Amino acid sequence: MKIAIALYPEFTALDCIGPYEVLSRIPGVDIEFLSAAGGPVRSDTGALTILTERKLADVPNPDILLVPGGPGDETAAGDPRMLEWLRRAHDTSKWTTSVCTGSLVLGAAGLLEGLEATTHWASYDRLAAYGARPVARRVVRQGKIITAAGVSAGIDMGLELLAEESGVDFAQGVQLAIEYDPQPPFDAGSPSKAPRHVLEMVRSVFETMRPKSSATA
Amino acid sequence: MKIAIALYPEFTALDCIGPYEVLSRIPGVDIEFLSAAGGPVRSDTGALTILTERKLADVPNPDILLVPGGPGDETAAGDPRMLEWLRRAHDTSKWTTSVCTGSLVLGAAGLLEGLEATTHWASYDRLAAYGARPVARRVVRQGKIITAAGVSAGIDMGLELLAEESGVDFAQGVQLAIEYDPQPPFDAGSPSKAPRHVLEMVRSVFETMRPKSSATA
Repeated sequence: MKIAIALYPEFTALDCIGPYEVLSRIPGVDIEFLSAAGGPVRSDTGALTILTERKLADVPNPDILLVPGGPGDETAAGDPRMLEWLRRAHDTSKWTTSVCTGSLVLGAAGLLEGLEATTHWASYDRLAAYGARPVARRVVRQGKIITAAGVSAGIDMGLELLAEESGVDFAQGVQLAIEYDPQPPFDAGSPSKAPRHVLEMVRSVFETMRPKSSATA
Repeated sequence: MKIAIALYPEFTALDCIGPYEVLSRIPGVDIEFLSAAGGPVRSDTGALTILTERKLADVPNPDILLVPGGPGDETAAGDPRMLEWLRRAHDTSKWTTSVCTGSLVLGAAGLLEGLEATTHWASYDRLAAYGARPVARRVVRQGKIITAAGVSAGIDMGLELLAEESGVDFAQGVQLAIEYDPQPPFDAGSPSKAPRHVLEMVRSVFETMRPKSSATA
Protein backbone atom coordinates (compact mmCIF):
# COMPACT_ATOMS: atom_id res chain seq x y z
CA MET A 1 0.00 0.00 0.00
CA LYS A 2 1.59 3.23 -1.22
CA ILE A 3 0.20 6.59 -0.08
CA ALA A 4 1.34 9.82 -1.72
CA ILE A 5 0.69 13.22 -0.14
CA ALA A 6 1.12 15.99 -2.70
CA LEU A 7 2.50 19.17 -1.12
CA TYR A 8 2.86 22.58 -2.72
CA PRO A 9 4.03 25.98 -1.40
CA GLU A 10 1.58 27.51 1.12
CA PHE A 11 -0.25 24.28 1.95
CA THR A 12 -2.03 24.10 5.32
CA ALA A 13 -0.19 21.63 7.53
CA LEU A 14 -3.03 20.13 9.56
CA ASP A 15 -4.90 19.30 6.33
CA CYS A 16 -2.35 16.60 5.58
CA ILE A 17 -0.91 15.79 9.00
CA GLY A 18 -4.36 14.74 10.30
CA PRO A 19 -4.95 11.95 7.76
CA TYR A 20 -1.20 11.16 7.64
CA GLU A 21 -1.23 10.41 11.38
CA VAL A 22 -4.17 8.05 10.94
CA LEU A 23 -3.22 6.34 7.67
CA SER A 24 0.47 5.93 8.51
CA ARG A 25 -0.61 3.19 10.92
CA ILE A 26 -1.89 0.87 8.20
CA PRO A 27 0.35 -2.20 8.63
CA GLY A 28 3.11 -2.23 6.03
CA VAL A 29 2.05 1.10 4.53
CA ASP A 30 4.56 3.21 2.62
CA ILE A 31 3.51 6.84 3.02
CA GLU A 32 5.45 9.64 1.39
CA PHE A 33 5.30 13.44 1.11
CA LEU A 34 6.02 14.61 -2.42
CA SER A 35 6.11 17.90 -4.32
CA ALA A 36 6.42 19.00 -7.93
CA ALA A 37 10.05 20.04 -7.55
CA GLY A 38 11.11 17.93 -4.54
CA GLY A 39 13.05 19.48 -1.65
CA PRO A 40 11.77 21.73 1.12
CA VAL A 41 8.18 22.96 0.93
CA ARG A 42 7.03 25.83 3.12
CA SER A 43 3.55 25.86 4.62
CA ASP A 44 1.09 28.78 4.57
CA THR A 45 2.34 30.32 7.83
CA GLY A 46 5.92 30.42 6.59
CA ALA A 47 6.94 28.84 9.89
CA LEU A 48 6.88 25.16 8.92
CA THR A 49 9.01 23.48 6.27
CA ILE A 50 8.52 19.84 5.30
CA LEU A 51 11.29 18.14 3.36
CA THR A 52 10.01 16.17 0.37
CA GLU A 53 12.71 13.73 -0.65
CA ARG A 54 11.21 12.96 -4.06
CA LYS A 55 9.13 14.57 -6.77
CA LEU A 56 5.54 13.83 -7.74
CA ALA A 57 6.83 12.33 -10.98
CA ASP A 58 8.84 9.77 -9.01
CA VAL A 59 5.66 8.15 -7.67
CA PRO A 60 3.27 7.90 -10.62
CA ASN A 61 1.02 5.14 -9.28
CA PRO A 62 0.17 5.49 -5.57
CA ASP A 63 -2.71 3.44 -4.16
CA ILE A 64 -3.97 6.44 -2.24
CA LEU A 65 -3.26 10.03 -3.14
CA LEU A 66 -4.07 13.01 -0.95
CA VAL A 67 -4.04 16.72 -1.72
CA PRO A 68 -4.20 19.16 1.21
CA GLY A 69 -5.68 22.63 0.95
CA GLY A 70 -4.21 26.00 1.75
CA PRO A 71 -3.76 29.52 0.42
CA GLY A 72 -1.43 28.02 -2.22
CA ASP A 73 -4.27 26.00 -3.76
CA GLU A 74 -4.51 28.32 -6.73
CA THR A 75 -0.78 28.06 -7.45
CA ALA A 76 -1.10 24.27 -7.27
CA ALA A 77 -4.18 24.37 -9.50
CA GLY A 78 -2.13 26.23 -12.10
CA ASP A 79 0.93 23.97 -11.99
CA PRO A 80 0.93 21.55 -14.94
CA ARG A 81 3.28 19.18 -13.06
CA MET A 82 0.65 18.84 -10.32
CA LEU A 83 -2.29 18.52 -12.72
CA GLU A 84 -0.63 15.97 -14.99
CA TRP A 85 0.47 13.91 -12.02
CA LEU A 86 -3.04 14.01 -10.54
CA ARG A 87 -4.71 12.88 -13.76
CA ARG A 88 -2.29 10.04 -14.27
CA ALA A 89 -2.23 8.92 -10.62
CA HIS A 90 -6.02 9.05 -10.45
CA ASP A 91 -6.24 6.68 -13.44
CA THR A 92 -4.75 3.87 -11.37
CA SER A 93 -5.40 4.92 -7.77
CA LYS A 94 -7.57 3.00 -5.38
CA TRP A 95 -8.55 6.20 -3.59
CA THR A 96 -8.15 9.82 -4.67
CA THR A 97 -8.62 12.17 -1.73
CA SER A 98 -8.43 15.80 -0.68
CA VAL A 99 -8.83 17.90 2.44
CA CYS A 100 -10.14 21.48 2.55
CA THR A 101 -9.38 23.43 -0.63
CA GLY A 102 -7.30 20.52 -1.90
CA SER A 103 -10.50 19.60 -3.74
CA LEU A 104 -10.04 22.72 -5.89
CA VAL A 105 -6.81 21.21 -7.15
CA LEU A 106 -8.62 17.97 -7.95
CA GLY A 107 -11.21 20.13 -9.68
CA ALA A 108 -8.57 21.94 -11.71
CA ALA A 109 -7.32 18.55 -12.89
CA GLY A 110 -10.83 17.85 -14.16
CA LEU A 111 -11.52 15.04 -11.72
CA LEU A 112 -14.67 16.39 -10.10
CA GLU A 113 -16.87 17.31 -13.06
CA GLY A 114 -20.49 16.47 -12.30
CA LEU A 115 -19.59 14.93 -8.94
CA GLU A 116 -20.61 15.84 -5.43
CA ALA A 117 -17.63 17.09 -3.44
CA THR A 118 -16.79 19.27 -0.49
CA THR A 119 -14.18 21.83 0.50
CA HIS A 120 -13.68 24.53 3.12
CA TRP A 121 -17.07 26.18 3.81
CA ALA A 122 -15.81 29.54 2.51
CA SER A 123 -14.93 28.08 -0.91
CA TYR A 124 -18.04 26.27 -2.14
CA ASP A 125 -18.40 28.72 -5.04
CA ARG A 126 -14.84 28.12 -6.16
CA LEU A 127 -15.50 24.37 -6.15
CA ALA A 128 -18.66 24.82 -8.22
CA ALA A 129 -16.62 26.73 -10.80
CA TYR A 130 -14.86 23.43 -11.57
CA GLY A 131 -18.14 21.71 -12.37
CA ALA A 132 -18.47 19.93 -9.02
CA ARG A 133 -21.62 19.98 -6.94
CA PRO A 134 -20.58 21.37 -3.53
CA VAL A 135 -22.02 19.56 -0.52
CA ALA A 136 -21.85 20.85 3.05
CA ARG A 137 -20.83 17.54 4.61
CA ARG A 138 -17.67 16.70 6.55
CA VAL A 139 -16.67 13.84 4.25
CA VAL A 140 -18.10 13.27 0.76
CA ARG A 141 -17.49 10.06 -1.14
CA GLN A 142 -18.18 9.57 -4.84
CA GLY A 143 -16.83 6.26 -6.05
CA LYS A 144 -13.14 6.28 -5.26
CA ILE A 145 -12.96 10.05 -4.75
CA ILE A 146 -13.21 11.25 -1.17
CA THR A 147 -13.19 14.96 -0.36
CA ALA A 148 -13.14 16.30 3.19
CA ALA A 149 -14.26 19.69 4.51
CA GLY A 150 -11.95 22.29 6.07
CA VAL A 151 -8.57 21.52 7.68
CA SER A 152 -9.42 19.32 10.69
CA ALA A 153 -11.94 17.24 8.70
CA GLY A 154 -9.03 15.24 7.32
CA ILE A 155 -8.77 13.35 10.61
CA ASP A 156 -12.36 12.13 10.29
CA MET A 157 -11.80 11.24 6.64
CA GLY A 158 -8.64 9.35 7.54
CA LEU A 159 -10.51 7.22 10.06
CA GLU A 160 -13.30 6.48 7.58
CA LEU A 161 -10.78 5.44 4.95
CA LEU A 162 -8.79 3.41 7.47
CA ALA A 163 -11.92 1.45 8.44
CA GLU A 164 -12.45 0.72 4.76
CA GLU A 165 -8.87 -0.50 4.30
CA SER A 166 -8.11 -2.21 7.62
CA GLY A 167 -11.48 -2.83 9.25
CA VAL A 168 -13.48 -1.10 11.96
CA ASP A 169 -11.60 -2.69 14.87
CA PHE A 170 -8.28 -1.44 13.57
CA ALA A 171 -9.64 2.03 12.86
CA GLN A 172 -11.06 2.22 16.37
CA GLY A 173 -7.68 1.09 17.68
CA VAL A 174 -5.97 3.97 15.89
CA GLN A 175 -8.60 6.40 17.16
CA LEU A 176 -7.78 5.19 20.67
CA ALA A 177 -4.02 5.30 20.02
CA ILE A 178 -4.21 8.96 18.97
CA GLU A 179 -6.74 9.59 21.76
CA TYR A 180 -9.14 11.18 19.30
CA ASP A 181 -11.91 11.90 21.77
CA PRO A 182 -12.42 15.53 20.77
CA GLN A 183 -13.45 17.98 23.47
CA PRO A 184 -13.19 21.43 21.91
CA PRO A 185 -13.78 24.15 24.49
CA PHE A 186 -16.36 25.76 22.16
CA ASP A 187 -18.93 24.54 19.68
CA ALA A 188 -18.16 26.97 16.90
CA GLY A 189 -16.59 24.73 14.29
CA SER A 190 -19.11 25.15 11.46
CA PRO A 191 -20.98 28.11 9.97
CA SER A 192 -24.26 26.78 11.38
CA LYS A 193 -22.86 26.51 14.92
CA ALA A 194 -20.62 29.57 15.28
CA PRO A 195 -22.09 32.77 16.75
CA ARG A 196 -23.13 35.10 13.91
CA HIS A 197 -20.62 37.83 14.75
CA VAL A 198 -17.81 35.25 14.73
CA LEU A 199 -18.98 33.93 11.37
CA GLU A 200 -19.05 37.45 9.91
CA MET A 201 -15.58 38.18 11.29
CA VAL A 202 -14.06 35.03 9.75
CA ARG A 203 -15.94 35.47 6.49
CA SER A 204 -14.57 38.97 6.07
CA VAL A 205 -11.01 37.75 6.74
CA PHE A 206 -11.43 35.04 4.10
CA GLU A 207 -12.84 37.59 1.65
CA THR A 208 -9.65 39.60 1.82
CA MET A 209 -7.59 36.42 1.27
CA ARG A 210 -9.47 35.12 -1.77
CA PRO A 211 -7.45 34.68 -4.94
CA LYS A 212 -8.22 37.60 -7.25
CA SER A 213 -9.07 35.27 -10.11
CA SER A 214 -11.83 33.59 -8.13
CA ALA A 215 -14.13 36.54 -8.68
CA THR A 216 -14.34 35.55 -12.32
CA ALA A 217 -13.69 31.81 -12.00
CA MET B 1 4.59 36.76 21.14
CA LYS B 2 7.23 34.09 20.46
CA ILE B 3 6.22 30.40 20.39
CA ALA B 4 8.88 27.68 20.32
CA ILE B 5 8.03 24.08 19.41
CA ALA B 6 10.82 21.74 20.53
CA LEU B 7 11.21 18.80 18.14
CA TYR B 8 13.39 15.72 18.62
CA PRO B 9 13.89 12.55 16.54
CA GLU B 10 10.81 10.30 16.51
CA PHE B 11 8.31 12.93 17.62
CA THR B 12 4.66 12.39 16.69
CA ALA B 13 3.66 14.97 14.11
CA LEU B 14 0.01 15.60 14.99
CA ASP B 15 1.03 16.33 18.61
CA CYS B 16 2.62 19.57 17.50
CA ILE B 17 0.83 20.34 14.23
CA GLY B 18 -2.55 20.47 16.00
CA PRO B 19 -1.67 23.30 18.40
CA TYR B 20 0.65 24.91 15.81
CA GLU B 21 -2.29 25.25 13.41
CA VAL B 22 -4.37 26.94 16.11
CA LEU B 23 -1.72 29.13 17.75
CA SER B 24 -0.08 30.25 14.51
CA ARG B 25 -3.15 32.44 13.97
CA ILE B 26 -2.48 34.69 16.96
CA PRO B 27 -2.04 38.13 15.33
CA GLY B 28 1.64 39.01 15.04
CA VAL B 29 2.81 35.69 16.48
CA ASP B 30 6.27 34.38 15.70
CA ILE B 31 6.10 30.59 15.85
CA GLU B 32 9.16 28.44 15.23
CA PHE B 33 10.10 24.77 15.16
CA LEU B 34 13.44 24.12 16.86
CA SER B 35 15.60 21.13 17.74
CA ALA B 36 18.70 20.50 19.82
CA ALA B 37 20.98 20.24 16.80
CA GLY B 38 18.97 22.21 14.22
CA GLY B 39 18.43 20.87 10.71
CA PRO B 40 16.06 18.13 9.55
CA VAL B 41 14.17 16.16 12.22
CA ARG B 42 12.45 12.92 11.32
CA SER B 43 9.13 11.97 12.89
CA ASP B 44 8.24 8.61 14.44
CA THR B 45 6.96 7.06 11.19
CA GLY B 46 10.19 7.87 9.37
CA ALA B 47 8.05 9.30 6.57
CA LEU B 48 7.93 12.95 7.61
CA THR B 49 10.86 15.32 8.00
CA ILE B 50 10.49 18.84 9.35
CA LEU B 51 13.31 21.29 8.77
CA THR B 52 14.26 23.22 11.91
CA GLU B 53 16.19 26.28 10.86
CA ARG B 54 17.59 27.03 14.30
CA LYS B 55 18.61 25.29 17.49
CA LEU B 56 16.88 25.30 20.86
CA ALA B 57 19.77 27.36 22.22
CA ASP B 58 19.02 30.09 19.67
CA VAL B 59 15.65 30.83 21.30
CA PRO B 60 16.24 30.84 25.04
CA ASN B 61 13.21 32.91 26.08
CA PRO B 62 10.02 32.02 24.18
CA ASP B 63 6.69 33.24 25.57
CA ILE B 64 5.12 29.85 24.92
CA LEU B 65 7.03 26.61 24.65
CA LEU B 66 5.54 23.33 23.49
CA VAL B 67 6.95 19.81 23.61
CA PRO B 68 5.21 17.12 21.54
CA GLY B 69 5.24 13.44 22.47
CA GLY B 70 6.31 10.41 20.51
CA PRO B 71 8.36 7.22 20.71
CA GLY B 72 11.46 9.43 20.91
CA ASP B 73 10.33 10.93 24.23
CA GLU B 74 12.90 8.93 26.15
CA THR B 75 15.73 10.07 23.92
CA ALA B 76 14.57 13.66 24.41
CA ALA B 77 14.27 13.11 28.16
CA GLY B 78 17.91 12.01 28.19
CA ASP B 79 19.28 14.85 26.09
CA PRO B 80 20.92 17.51 28.30
CA ARG B 81 20.52 20.13 25.54
CA MET B 82 16.74 19.61 25.69
CA LEU B 83 16.56 19.53 29.49
CA GLU B 84 18.74 22.58 30.04
CA TRP B 85 16.79 24.54 27.45
CA LEU B 86 13.48 23.52 29.03
CA ARG B 87 14.55 24.57 32.54
CA ARG B 88 15.85 27.91 31.35
CA ALA B 89 12.95 28.65 28.99
CA HIS B 90 10.44 27.69 31.65
CA ASP B 91 11.99 30.22 34.05
CA THR B 92 10.81 33.07 31.85
CA SER B 93 7.95 31.55 29.81
CA LYS B 94 4.38 32.73 30.01
CA TRP B 95 3.14 29.21 29.22
CA THR B 96 4.98 25.90 29.29
CA THR B 97 3.03 23.21 27.45
CA SER B 98 3.17 19.64 26.25
CA VAL B 99 1.07 17.20 24.25
CA CYS B 100 0.95 13.43 24.78
CA THR B 101 4.21 12.01 26.16
CA GLY B 102 5.83 15.41 25.76
CA SER B 103 4.93 15.79 29.44
CA LEU B 104 7.50 13.07 30.23
CA VAL B 105 10.17 15.37 28.83
CA LEU B 106 8.89 18.21 31.03
CA GLY B 107 8.98 15.69 33.88
CA ALA B 108 12.56 14.72 33.11
CA ALA B 109 13.48 18.40 33.31
CA GLY B 110 12.03 18.44 36.81
CA LEU B 111 9.17 20.79 35.97
CA LEU B 112 6.25 18.62 37.09
CA GLU B 113 7.21 17.55 40.58
CA GLY B 114 4.16 17.49 42.82
CA LEU B 115 1.93 18.85 40.07
CA GLU B 116 -1.11 17.39 38.39
CA ALA B 117 -0.39 16.63 34.75
CA THR B 118 -1.56 14.41 31.94
CA THR B 119 -0.06 12.40 29.10
CA HIS B 120 -1.07 9.62 26.71
CA TRP B 121 -3.39 7.21 28.58
CA ALA B 122 -0.89 4.35 28.21
CA SER B 123 1.87 6.30 29.98
CA TYR B 124 0.39 7.51 33.28
CA ASP B 125 2.84 5.33 35.24
CA ARG B 126 5.82 6.81 33.42
CA LEU B 127 4.56 10.30 34.26
CA ALA B 128 4.16 9.37 37.94
CA ALA B 129 7.79 8.21 37.95
CA TYR B 130 8.76 11.88 37.51
CA GLY B 131 6.88 12.92 40.63
CA ALA B 132 3.81 14.24 38.81
CA ARG B 133 0.27 13.30 39.74
CA PRO B 134 -1.27 11.85 36.54
CA VAL B 135 -4.80 12.98 35.78
CA ALA B 136 -7.05 11.42 33.13
CA ARG B 137 -8.26 14.69 31.65
CA ARG B 138 -7.86 16.03 28.14
CA VAL B 139 -6.17 19.25 29.22
CA VAL B 140 -4.63 19.83 32.65
CA ARG B 141 -3.55 23.27 33.80
CA GLN B 142 -1.37 23.97 36.82
CA GLY B 143 -0.34 27.58 36.97
CA LYS B 144 1.45 28.30 33.72
CA ILE B 145 2.02 24.63 32.87
CA ILE B 146 -0.54 23.05 30.55
CA THR B 147 -0.29 19.38 29.63
CA ALA B 148 -2.59 17.72 27.09
CA ALA B 149 -3.54 14.06 26.68
CA GLY B 150 -2.63 11.89 23.68
CA VAL B 151 -1.82 13.23 20.19
CA SER B 152 -5.08 14.88 19.03
CA ALA B 153 -5.67 16.54 22.43
CA GLY B 154 -3.23 19.26 21.40
CA ILE B 155 -5.91 20.82 19.19
CA ASP B 156 -8.24 21.26 22.18
CA MET B 157 -5.37 22.59 24.29
CA GLY B 158 -4.45 25.02 21.54
CA LEU B 159 -7.95 26.45 21.44
CA GLU B 160 -8.07 26.81 25.22
CA LEU B 161 -4.75 28.62 25.23
CA LEU B 162 -5.78 30.78 22.27
CA ALA B 163 -8.92 31.89 24.12
CA GLU B 164 -6.71 32.85 27.06
CA GLU B 165 -4.35 34.87 24.84
CA SER B 166 -6.67 36.37 22.23
CA GLY B 167 -10.17 36.07 23.69
CA VAL B 168 -13.08 33.69 23.18
CA ASP B 169 -14.37 35.36 19.99
CA PHE B 170 -11.02 35.01 18.31
CA ALA B 171 -10.59 31.40 19.43
CA GLN B 172 -14.04 30.56 18.12
CA GLY B 173 -13.11 32.26 14.87
CA VAL B 174 -10.06 30.02 14.52
CA GLN B 175 -12.15 26.97 15.36
CA LEU B 176 -14.48 27.97 12.53
CA ALA B 177 -11.57 28.74 10.19
CA ILE B 178 -10.13 25.25 10.67
CA GLU B 179 -13.65 23.82 10.60
CA TYR B 180 -13.04 21.99 13.87
CA ASP B 181 -16.47 20.45 14.20
CA PRO B 182 -15.26 16.91 14.87
CA GLN B 183 -17.37 14.05 13.59
CA PRO B 184 -15.30 10.91 14.10
CA PRO B 185 -16.99 7.87 12.53
CA PHE B 186 -16.57 5.97 15.84
CA ASP B 187 -16.64 6.85 19.52
CA ALA B 188 -13.56 4.92 20.57
CA GLY B 189 -11.12 7.71 21.38
CA SER B 190 -10.56 7.03 25.08
CA PRO B 191 -10.01 3.88 27.17
CA SER B 192 -13.43 4.31 28.77
CA LYS B 193 -15.22 4.54 25.41
CA ALA B 194 -13.38 2.02 23.21
CA PRO B 195 -14.70 -1.55 23.00
CA ARG B 196 -12.78 -3.75 25.43
CA HIS B 197 -11.19 -5.94 22.73
CA VAL B 198 -9.95 -2.82 20.94
CA LEU B 199 -8.50 -1.46 24.18
CA GLU B 200 -6.70 -4.76 24.85
CA MET B 201 -5.34 -4.83 21.30
CA VAL B 202 -3.93 -1.30 21.52
CA ARG B 203 -2.63 -1.81 25.05
CA SER B 204 -0.65 -4.88 23.96
CA VAL B 205 0.85 -2.99 21.01
CA PHE B 206 1.94 -0.17 23.35
CA GLU B 207 3.41 -2.71 25.78
CA THR B 208 5.77 -3.98 23.10
CA MET B 209 6.78 -0.38 22.27
CA ARG B 210 7.53 0.76 25.82
CA PRO B 211 11.08 1.94 26.47
CA LYS B 212 12.92 -0.84 28.32
CA SER B 213 13.97 1.51 31.08
CA SER B 214 10.39 2.36 31.97
CA ALA B 215 9.95 -0.98 33.74
CA THR B 216 12.33 0.25 36.39
CA ALA B 217 11.68 4.00 36.11
